[in-house]
Parts: sequence; C-alpha cells; structure tokens
Amino acid sequence: MSQAKLSHSALAQLVTKIFERGGLSPLHANALTRVIVAGEGDACKSHGIYRIEGCLRTIKAGKVVPDAVPVVQQDDSGIVRVDAKGGFSNAAFELGAPVLAERCRTLGIAAMVINDCTHFAALWPEIEMMTDLGLAAMAMCPSYASVAPSGGTEPLMGTNPFAFGWPRPDHPPYVFDFATSVAARGEIELHRRAGTPLPEGWAIAPDGTPTTDPEAALAGAMLPFGGHKGSAISTMIELLAGVMIGDQTSPEAREALGAMSLAPAHGELIIAFDPARFAAGRTGDPMARAERLFEAILGQGARLPSQRRFAARAETVAHGIPLTHDEIKNLERLLELGFDALN
Amino acid sequence: MSQAKLSHSALAQLVTKIFERGGLSPLHANALTRVIVAGEGDACKSHGIYRIEGCLRTIKAGKVVPDAVPVVQQDDSGIVRVDAKGGFSNAAFELGAPVLAERCRTLGIAAMVINDCTHFAALWPEIEMMTDLGLAAMAMCPSYASVAPSGGTEPLMGTNPFAFGWPRPDHPPYVFDFATSVAARGEIELHRRAGTPLPEGWAIAPDGTPTTDPEAALAGAMLPFGGHKGSAISTMIELLAGVMIGDQTSPEAREALGAMSLAPAHGELIIAFDPARFAAGRTGDPMARAERLFEAILGQGARLPSQRRFAARAETVAHGIPLTHDEIKNLERLLELGFDALN
Repeated sequence: MSQAKLSHSALAQLVTKIFERGGLSPLHANALTRVIVAGEGDACKSHGIYRIEGCLRTIKAGKVVPDAVPVVQQDDSGIVRVDAKGGFSNAAFELGAPVLAERCRTLGIAAMVINDCTHFAALWPEIEMMTDLGLAAMAMCPSYASVAPSGGTEPLMGTNPFAFGWPRPDHPPYVFDFATSVAARGEIELHRRAGTPLPEGWAIAPDGTPTTDPEAALAGAMLPFGGHKGSAISTMIELLAGVMIGDQTSPEAREALGAMSLAPAHGELIIAFDPARFAAGRTGDPMARAERLFEAILGQGARLPSQRRFAARAETVAHGIPLTHDEIKNLERLLELGFDALN
Repeated sequence: MSQAKLSHSALAQLVTKIFERGGLSPLHANALTRVIVAGEGDACKSHGIYRIEGCLRTIKAGKVVPDAVPVVQQDDSGIVRVDAKGGFSNAAFELGAPVLAERCRTLGIAAMVINDCTHFAALWPEIEMMTDLGLAAMAMCPSYASVAPSGGTEPLMGTNPFAFGWPRPDHPPYVFDFATSVAARGEIELHRRAGTPLPEGWAIAPDGTPTTDPEAALAGAMLPFGGHKGSAISTMIELLAGVMIGDQTSPEAREALGAMSLAPAHGELIIAFDPARFAAGRTGDPMARAERLFEAILGQGARLPSQRRFAARAETVAHGIPLTHDEIKNLERLLELGFDALN
C-alpha cells in the first residue's frame, strides 16, 4: 500500500474538521483530536484515526452530548470531581487536571473522578499530562461487559484499562497503559478486519469454549490477563472506578448502550501522587533513584513499557505520521460526507 | 501424619511465648502473633507458623530492632507516615491504621507510608483491618530482588505483593492479595521442602533458562505473572512503595541484607478510599451495587478471591486449627530452645 506522511498539525486540522462537521463543539473536537493524533503519532493504531468512526457513530446515535460543558467540583478534600455532563471524557479530564495537580501538591495524594462521560480513549495521554507536571499517576476505568471473570463463562467485566506513570526529567516518562483482558478489544477488531486468527488464550466463544476466531470472540467473551490475578484487578477497577464513584459498571454500561460499536458511558478514576511530598524527610532523590531502577531493567536486556511509542513519536514528529492512501481517502470521505460516510 | 486441633487463642499463646523468648517486646510479639495465627487459621500455610523461624532468624542476626517503638507522623496532608524504627512492620501498621482511617474519612482518600520496617507478612490482614472500618484499601510493598523483569534474565524486582479490599457489610470482605511473581517465594520454598518440582513458567535458572527445579529457581529468578503486564505492575510497586516513599527497593533490600533467609527491610504503601465520600451526591448505594457485581461473578460459576481462606477461618474458629504432631513438636522445640532450635 502506498503511503503519505502528514505532520501532526496537518492531521490534527483534518481530524478537528471531521469532528466539528460531526457536531462536536470546538472544546470537544479539539480534545478528541489531541488524543487521536497522539495515538496515531505514537503508532498506536488501535487508538488512532481508527477510533474516529466510532466517535461519529456515537454522536449520530445520540449517545453523547456533543456540546457538553464539563463542570469541576472542588472542595478542601482530596477528591476532585468533574461532571462531564454526558460529553466525551477528554475535555473533562483536561479541565480537571490542573485542579487535581493542585490538590495533589497540597495533600501529597489526591484523586479525580470523572462522572457521566463517554469514553473511548487510551489512558496514557492523561497519565502523560500528569507526569509532565512532575507527578506520578494511576488511572483506571470500566468499559463494557466483554470479558469473563477467571473461571467464568460469560462477559461481565470490561477490558478495564489500568495505567500508571512516573515522571522522568530527562526522558519520556515511565508509562504503562494496558487492558486487563489478555488483549484490547481494538486488537481483536483489527484481527477481524484483517481476517487473521487470534492467538490462543485470548477469548472464549459464546458456548464458553476457547476460540481463535475474532467473530466468535467478539460474540463470546475475552479472557483476563494473568488468570485469577488479572481477573481480580479487573474486578477492583469495576469497584473503584464504577461502583465507588457512583458511575456505571461495565455490565451496566453495556446494558444502557445496547451496542458495542458505540463508545460506552461510565466514569473514570485518576489517582495522583506527589513524589516530593512522599519522599520528604527521607534520604535520596526519588527522581535519581528511579533512574537507577530503569537502568537496571534496561541493563539486563528487558524493556521499559511505551518505548516503542516514544520512538515512533520522535520519528513522526520529525518526519510526519505515515498514513496509507486508503486511510487518507477515508478521512477525506468522513470530512465530505459526515455521518453519511458511516455504514 | 497424625494431627491435633488448637484453638486460635491456644496457638496465639504459644506463638506469643516463642516470640517473647526470642526477644521481641510484647508490642511486637503480639502483633506478629496476630498475623501468623491469622495465616494458619485461614489455612494459608505459606504465611502461618512456617514464618516463625524466619522471624527468629532475623532477630538472631540482629537485622531487626526487637523492641522498636514505632512513631506516627501526622499533619493536615493526605499522607500518614509511620516510622517503624527498624522494627517489624506489623505493629507500625496497627498504630497507624486508625490515623489513616481518620485522614481518609476527612479527605476521601489518604495514604499511609511505613518506613524502615522489616517485613514478612501477608498484606491481607492489613487490608481486612481497613475493610472492617468500612473503607476500601490498596496495599503494596517491595521485597528482595528475586524476580526478573519480563524479557530479562536476572533477579531485580521482588515478589512485590499487591493487595486490595472492599468492605461487605454482610459477608467477609472482597479481598485479594497476591505476589506479582507467578508464585510467591514461600510457595517455591514449600516445593523445595516437599521435594516436588515447580509448575512450568514459574522461574528461570541462574543461566536464564526455564526451570522446574525449586533449588535452581531460588538460585536464579522467578518470573512475573502475566508477562509484561505483571512486570509493569511490579515495577510500579518498586517506584511507589520503594523509591517514592524514600525507602529501599528490592535490589537495595537484598544488597543490604546479604541473605534471603531473613526478612527484608523496606517500606510499605497503603492507600485508603472512603466509598461514602466518593459516591456522595451520586445515585445508588455503593455497598448494594458492589453486591450485585459479586452476585454476577458467583452466578456464572466463578469465584471471589479469598473465599477458601474465609471458609477455612469459619472452620478453624469453630473447631480449631489443625496442626500435625510434627508441627506442634517443632513449636514446642522453638519455645524450649529459642535461637538454639534454629539450624
């Protein structure tokens, strides 16, 4: 397939226009564009332009408020709450992030709750926003019921991403962001589109038996990573980032939406830590000590998470984001036809 | 093997006397006894009386302060710090727990840091202390370098336990507590003692190749659970509960101790969440909603973590803790001979 290279800003302009034509307010069009261009620019295809159609489909179905104005509720506690008012989560996060950082610097630890949002994005752009401020952060959210608990037979939990970041002054941050299912749903979708079988152990068919067929997997259930341990972490995410914050769990989100081709509505939990506050009064600079740990990992030939993303970022910032002509044609089609371009 | 049954209090009296004869102050003898009897009473053999000799060996080697008086430092932030003053972690946790709970109720979220402690216990007794107060809690700590990072060849991370609990008003809490290695080091020790091979995938030998030999595994490195995902979580624990809190990482703890038959010295991080504060202003009672999630998990034949422990607890509270005559004889020997009973 022939390809072209678009600069980050050229792709951003195109994506923003697509979203504005789709009815999103500038606030949301810009926030969504930032995470989608970041995904594509990091060669993280499952969270790049591939997500645009799902967002448009969700707007078209009336399942998200395209011009919602998120509201931050702040008091003297350690909880910052952002009511997304039914809009996409991304603008809500951007609005709350500086308040979370302030609370975290004041208290040492603080949490941000996003309620009533529609969610489709990776968590690492949010984690990196916190590490850019010199804070460590953990983030998690449900999705929609598509993963069976360990030992179970039916979809109940979501792919429930779990993400964490640690700031590094002279390097891109230490960041991981993974689905608590063996694979992300987007990865199974990509296999379905490519017509390739899944690796063993990713999923079970609707009858509860193991399958490598993407269609059967999407109709059945995915499996949690790491057996009962990953299943327990996924359950923790339903409890903390669903039940505890008074927002939908994955089974509730799926039932409310009635479809999995649309972005689900639920909440999100972000916990921020100020290393300077936690290390106060102790010997050793936490930033320098963390570097020694990373060196020891790299020194034995192991990798740090996200290094492939950061390498891709350096490449695409310098030389543009590679897109196939089919991908570009599809973006132009989405801009020209709007909702009519959706199947 | 013939066996006898001891009541929880009878076993506790015996274990307390062993620890006091070993030189622990009553504060520590009682705190250690509580977690060891809890482990044995929950049929969690790897954290029961099996641990007594390691504790005595650590005292005998002068690697723990047997009469340390832990000190709580509290301010108006979300961080409660307990300086264990070189003693075992358990009494430090018990001292700080009510302060953590107060901070958590005030702020919605709070963290407890334990510094300069010697650590050998499971985390679930601590988690259950928080759920008993109606709070959710997450706990983690390093241990000593015995696990290779995913893709690596040498021990670097510890078995780094990760634990979480959610309070259930009418049931024992939802609790998990697992090593971020495929298996806990204690499980490998039990295989070594029993002379049985390890399951595949638990460990690598000193030359970096897979092994099922417990001796080779203990000399080489264990592997993280869930591949790169578990490895990332284990790294997060080194960062948050080692580097960030200004305490030893697993490689530092191993280097400082020079042995793995003794309990390591490092810190611990506990994060507490007040569900009532997080759910405030939202519809739905989080306790009732969590029950629906648990029912859905159980309803498809999957299990909740720790259910075996709770079943064992109900049995041993009612009918006593089963111990073999060899186990009882060994406890009597430890009481009679003290340090001289150690190999």
